[in-house]
Amino acid sequence: MQQLSIDIKNIFQTISPEKFETVLNELTECNRLLETGYGQGRDMLGWVNLPETTTQELIDQINSTAKKINDIADVIIVIGIGGSYLGAKAMVDALGENFSYLKPDYKQIIFAGQNISEDYISELIQATQNRRTALIAVSKSGNTLEPMLTFRILREEMQHRYGVEGARKRIFVLTDESKGSLREIVWKEGYESLSVPSNVGGRYSVLTSVGLLPAAVAGINIKELIEGAKAMRVRCSSNINKLENPALIYAAARSVLYREGKQIEILACCEPYLKMLTEWWKQLFGESEGKLGKGLYPSTVTYPSDLHAIGQYIQDGPRIMIETAIKVRQSRSTIEVKSEIENLDKLNYLANKSLSHISRNIFEAVSIAHTKGGVPNISIEIQRLDAHSIGELIYFMERACGISAYGLNVNPFDQPGVDVYKKCADSLLR
Amino acid sequence: MQQLSIDIKNIFQTISPEKFETVLNELTECNRLLETGYGQGRDMLGWVNLPETTTQELIDQINSTAKKINDIADVIIVIGIGGSYLGAKAMVDALGENFSYLKPDYKQIIFAGQNISEDYISELIQATQNRRTALIAVSKSGNTLEPMLTFRILREEMQHRYGVEGARKRIFVLTDESKGSLREIVWKEGYESLSVPSNVGGRYSVLTSVGLLPAAVAGINIKELIEGAKAMRVRCSSNINKLENPALIYAAARSVLYREGKQIEILACCEPYLKMLTEWWKQLFGESEGKLGKGLYPSTVTYPSDLHAIGQYIQDGPRIMIETAIKVRQSRSTIEVKSEIENLDKLNYLANKSLSHISRNIFEAVSIAHTKGGVPNISIEIQRLDAHSIGELIYFMERACGISAYGLNVNPFDQPGVDVYKKCADSLLR
Repeated sequence: MQQLSIDIKNIFQTISPEKFETVLNELTECNRLLETGYGQGRDMLGWVNLPETTTQELIDQINSTAKKINDIADVIIVIGIGGSYLGAKAMVDALGENFSYLKPDYKQIIFAGQNISEDYISELIQATQNRRTALIAVSKSGNTLEPMLTFRILREEMQHRYGVEGARKRIFVLTDESKGSLREIVWKEGYESLSVPSNVGGRYSVLTSVGLLPAAVAGINIKELIEGAKAMRVRCSSNINKLENPALIYAAARSVLYREGKQIEILACCEPYLKMLTEWWKQLFGESEGKLGKGLYPSTVTYPSDLHAIGQYIQDGPRIMIETAIKVRQSRSTIEVKSEIENLDKLNYLANKSLSHISRNIFEAVSIAHTKGGVPNISIEIQRLDAHSIGELIYFMERACGISAYGLNVNPFDQPGVDVYKKCADSLLR
Repeated sequence: MQQLSIDIKNIFQTISPEKFETVLNELTECNRLLETGYGQGRDMLGWVNLPETTTQELIDQINSTAKKINDIADVIIVIGIGGSYLGAKAMVDALGENFSYLKPDYKQIIFAGQNISEDYISELIQATQNRRTALIAVSKSGNTLEPMLTFRILREEMQHRYGVEGARKRIFVLTDESKGSLREIVWKEGYESLSVPSNVGGRYSVLTSVGLLPAAVAGINIKELIEGAKAMRVRCSSNINKLENPALIYAAARSVLYREGKQIEILACCEPYLKMLTEWWKQLFGESEGKLGKGLYPSTVTYPSDLHAIGQYIQDGPRIMIETAIKVRQSRSTIEVKSEIENLDKLNYLANKSLSHISRNIFEAVSIAHTKGGVPNISIEIQRLDAHSIGELIYFMERACGISAYGLNVNPFDQPGVDVYKKCADSLLR
C-alpha cells in the first residue's frame, strides 16, 4: 500500500468495539458539517477544500517567488509564530536538505519571530552579516507582537545592509489580501507579497502560501504536497464509507478514549525529521480543542530517543495517556548492519538486518509493551518522507482535528483564550 | 540578586499555605535522605555531592581532552541517548555558539545515536565526507542499542575515511570505568576514554564527563558550571532553613499540587536557548517519578512561541495542569525598539523599551492570566545564560527531583519500565 494507513487494533484492550462504533457514527455527522458549513466557525472552513481550490497558477506564482528569493539570497529568514511558523518549519525539516549547514554553498532557512529574545535576534543579525540574506514576513493579521516586532528590527537591519532599495528587493510578505498592518506596510513599501486566504485560520494555513513559499524555497515539490492533500481529501469525504475514512477513524479513536477518561495524547514520531510536524500537530489540536475545560492534552515525543526519557513514565506512570505513533514505511537510504569479527558490542545478532527492519521491530515492541501496560495506542503509517506523503498526513490531521473538535462541541477555529494574557500584557506595556 | 530564585506565590490561589507547609515539612526529611543515604536507590547517590568531589584534576583532564578533539576535528559527533545525550545538548544549546553553522571555520557539534534512522545516519555520513570529523561515544553500560549500533556504523566509516590508526586518534569514549561492552572496546582498540562514575545514573550524569566533555568541546567554562552546581548544593543542604532551600520549595510546591489532583506539569522556558534543557528535565522527572502509577506528567513548552500553540489549551482546557517557568534576568545583548515615522505596524508604543523589558511584561501577563484561569504557576529565575547559572539550575533540578520522588515513595534512581519494550524487542529481533 502506498498511501497513509491507520491501525487502531490496540485501542480495543481498553474500549469495546460497540463504544467505538457509537462514536464513529456520531462523528460521521461532524465530518459532514465540515462540508456543509453548518457547524461552528463556519466562516473559517477554507482549508477543507483548499487542495482543490489551489490553482496551478498559484503554485507557479509561489515557485516563481521562491526562485526569486533563492537567486538573491542564501540565508532566508522566515519571520512568523504559531500557524505562521510551525507548519513551514515542519515541512522544511521533513523534506528539506538536512545537514545543509555542513555543506558549502548551501541555502539556509532560519526561523525568527517566534521569540523576542535579544540574544537570539542579535546573534542572528551578527551571524548573517556577510551572507546574502532575504526575509519572508508571515502574519495574516499583521497584529501579532513577536513577529511584527522582529520584522521591524530585521527590516531596519536589511536597510542598513542593503539600502532602502536593496532591502525592498529582499523582503517578501505573506499576509491578508486587504486587511491588517502588514498589508498596509506592503502597499507603502512595495514589497513583493502573496495573500493568505481570509477563511483559513493560522493553524490550518500550512497548505496556503504560508507553508508553501518556505517549502518551495527549501526545494520541496509543492505541487506534490497539494496532490497528496487532494488524495487524502477524497478519502475523507462524507460520502466515503466511514470504516474507510482515515481521518474519521483517528478522530473517533481518540474521542472514544477521551470519553473513557483518558487525558493526554502523546504523539510519537518514529522518524527524527518529523519532530517539528508533531509540534505543528500540538498547536492544531491543542488550540482547536482546548476550550470549555475540554480536550486531550497534546504532548509530543520522538522515538526511539524519548523511550529513554519518558518511556518509564508511559509504561508505569498514571494510566491517563493514549499514544499515537507516526511511522514511515520506507526510508530514503538503506543501511545494513555488518558482522564484526570481535563482536565486543554483541550486536552481531543484528548482522545483515537493515536499520529500518530493526526500527520496525522496536516500534512493534513498543506498541505491544504499551498496550500491555494500559496505554491504548494508534498507529499511523505514511509511505515515505516525500511531498505527497506529507501532504496526505497534513490534510489527514487537519480533517481529523475538525471532526474531533466538532465532536467535543467546541468551535474548532477560534482561540479566545490567548487573548487573556495578551490583554494583560497590553495593559502592562502601554 | 545574582543567584537562582524561585517564586511560588501563584500556587496559593489553589493551595492553602498550611497544606504547602505540611508537605514542605515532610519533604525536608526526603532531602535529608539524599544526604544520609537511607532512602531507596542509595547506591546511586553519587550526584548529590558530585560538585564537591569533582577535582581540578578531572576538570583539567576533560579540558585537555576537549582541546585534543578540537585540534583534530571541526565536526564532532556525540553518540548517545537519554542521559548520555540530553544534558550535553542542553548545555551546548544554552551556552555554546548559536548560529555557528553560519560562520566559516566553525566547530559543529552534532548528536547521533538517539535514533537509528537510516536517513539521518546516511545523510550525516554524506554531509561530513570532507570535514575533519571526530566521534565521542557515550554509554555508561555499553548496552544501549541505538548508540552502540550507531557507534558500530560510524566507527567503520571513520576507519574507511582515516584508516584504523587515523580513526583511533579521532574516537573518544565515555563509559564505565571497568564494566560493559564499551569499556571492552576501549581496551581492545586503545581509544582515549574518560570514566563515568558507577554511582551516578544516566539522567543524573550531566555534570560528569558525560556532559562536561561535550560542553568543553563547545568552549563552555566547565569549571564555572561546577562552581554554580556547588553553590546550589550548599543552598540545598539539609541544614539550611527549609524556607530558603530552593530545591525543597520547588519539590514541595509541585508535590502539594500533585496531591491536590493536578496531573501535568508544563515546564516553560522563556528563552529559546533553554529548549533542550527542558527536554533534559523531562527525562529527569519523568523517568525518576513515573512509577507505580504515580507522578506528574512532564511536558515542555517554549515561550512566547508556544503561547501561540498550546496557550489556548492552557488557558481554557481541563484544569489539570501546573506550569513552571524558567526565566533569565539578564540577556547577553540589548535591543531597544526604535521609533518609526510611519508607525504602520503601530508598535511605536514600545519605542525605547528593550526586548527584555517587553518579554518580562509578557511573561508577567502570562503568569497573571494563567493564575486567573486556574493554572497554578511557579517561577524560577536565573541571572544570565552563563555557565555558573546553568550549573545552579542543573543541580537545583536534580536535587528537587530526588526530593520529590522520595516524597512519592518511589525509587528515584531506577527505570524498570523501560525494560518491558526492550525485552519484547529483543525477542522479536533475535
